[in-house]
Amino acid sequence: MNAQADPAGESSSGDFVQSLARGLAVIRAFDAEHPELSLSEVSRRAGIPAAAARRFLRTLDTLGYVRSDARAFALTPRVLELGFSYLSALSLPETMQPHLERLSRETGESVSAAVLSGDEIVYVARVPTRRIMTVGITIGTRFPAYATSMGRVLLAALPEAQRDEALARAPMEPLTERTTTDAGRLRAELQRVREQGWAIVDGELEPGLRSAAAPVRRRDGSVAAAVNVSTSASRDTLAHLRDAHLPRLLETAAAITEDLRHV
Amino acid sequence: MNAQADPAGESSSGDFVQSLARGLAVIRAFDAEHPELSLSEVSRRAGIPAAAARRFLRTLDTLGYVRSDARAFALTPRVLELGFSYLSALSLPETMQPHLERLSRETGESVSAAVLSGDEIVYVARVPTRRIMTVGITIGTRFPAYATSMGRVLLAALPEAQRDEALARAPMEPLTERTTTDAGRLRAELQRVREQGWAIVDGELEPGLRSAAAPVRRRDGSVAAAVNVSTSASRDTLAHLRDAHLPRLLETAAAITEDLRHV
Repeated sequence: MNAQADPAGESSSGDFVQSLARGLAVIRAFDAEHPELSLSEVSRRAGIPAAAARRFLRTLDTLGYVRSDARAFALTPRVLELGFSYLSALSLPETMQPHLERLSRETGESVSAAVLSGDEIVYVARVPTRRIMTVGITIGTRFPAYATSMGRVLLAALPEAQRDEALARAPMEPLTERTTTDAGRLRAELQRVREQGWAIVDGELEPGLRSAAAPVRRRDGSVAAAVNVSTSASRDTLAHLRDAHLPRLLETAAAITEDLRHV
Repeated sequence: MNAQADPAGESSSGDFVQSLARGLAVIRAFDAEHPELSLSEVSRRAGIPAAAARRFLRTLDTLGYVRSDARAFALTPRVLELGFSYLSALSLPETMQPHLERLSRETGESVSAAVLSGDEIVYVARVPTRRIMTVGITIGTRFPAYATSMGRVLLAALPEAQRDEALARAPMEPLTERTTTDAGRLRAELQRVREQGWAIVDGELEPGLRSAAAPVRRRDGSVAAAVNVSTSASRDTLAHLRDAHLPRLLETAAAITEDLRHV
């Protein structure tokens, strides 16, 4: 980044607008562990001087993205609109939702859709099963791509150079004792996924969590997202996932791809 | 707003950082009808000069929020992280999700949660029913507060001055032939909602759409969100919503409130 701060922390050089970068860092300073922050906490967590942090917070307050009381600052629901700009522009969730609901009904399992963001997948739609207490996966949840079925479908669809780059960047940790961490084995698996058009991952992200994923494609044939069915080793066999759920998943992915031709 | 632009479009005056406001306007220029935009379209939709728009787009590209090809710009999934900062800081969706799933299972109906944003409600959690093709409501969807059960619960919880302000701001349109648009009648209804601790709205947002809502409260007793069960006039009676679903909804709201004591 070619930005340089002046004493007021506002200037920018070249084509990089530092004020925008810093303002977004202020928004990102808030999370589940830090829903309310004092000025000095925002300054520290966003890595910017307190005087500048105060101006960004006041600006966000004026724009309605932040509220404050005597003690602390917090984000408002308006921040959600920013993320919604993306989801809405994606058009995908709305197109996919009825298909995902039907697949969840047919399989009795949770069904999701995700896109690739760097070396992680991000959930953009989800139909949780109501049969069990599901884990806290919601829209926006991220997981490492290499250890998930949707991630492997999305990585497999990348041009080879980008795929290698994503794999090189990912810290491939053994999240369970089954996680594939060897780059050569993973590359071979991605090649297989690319050829067969689906991926199954068995307990590599979390012990006992199994899922199958398939790509949905845009009109031009490029992969728009991955869709999956996830199940649990404690109540279903791998053979049932492959023989019963996978064919329905592939039908669903084909139906969404067909719908995306007309969006 | 007390901002003044210099020729580069970067300066700011007082405590308002115009670059941040403009950068956020660039993100919001994208939506379902405009998933890809040219530089001149961004400039026009965000209301900023093309030269400045180019610098904001380049900055967002460097930060990973925008991607571009020869023709056009588009948002990336990273934008979702901004909205997720809010959802995550809210802590609510994760706490509520298992309760909402149980309520949906018990009632066989769609169950949602929302917060107030100005004079609108914003969905922060949703368990769609799998029985019918549901409408495209997802996290981030907004509806006018005055015409919805969750909105009435949230408006009823406001201090009187804020409530009057929200009602004065809302363009109270007859969305259906049943919509309450008289401010006096609405104020009386909100008083009743406040006293009884729940709201039922029958076809005021959309013909045939019925829902019941109740508040969930933070440790300090303030209302954190509203939870609802929605059903359709074509397959259920108003009496069944009130006599069968409402008691379960109130139990669910109480259980979430209890859980929020320990968050």
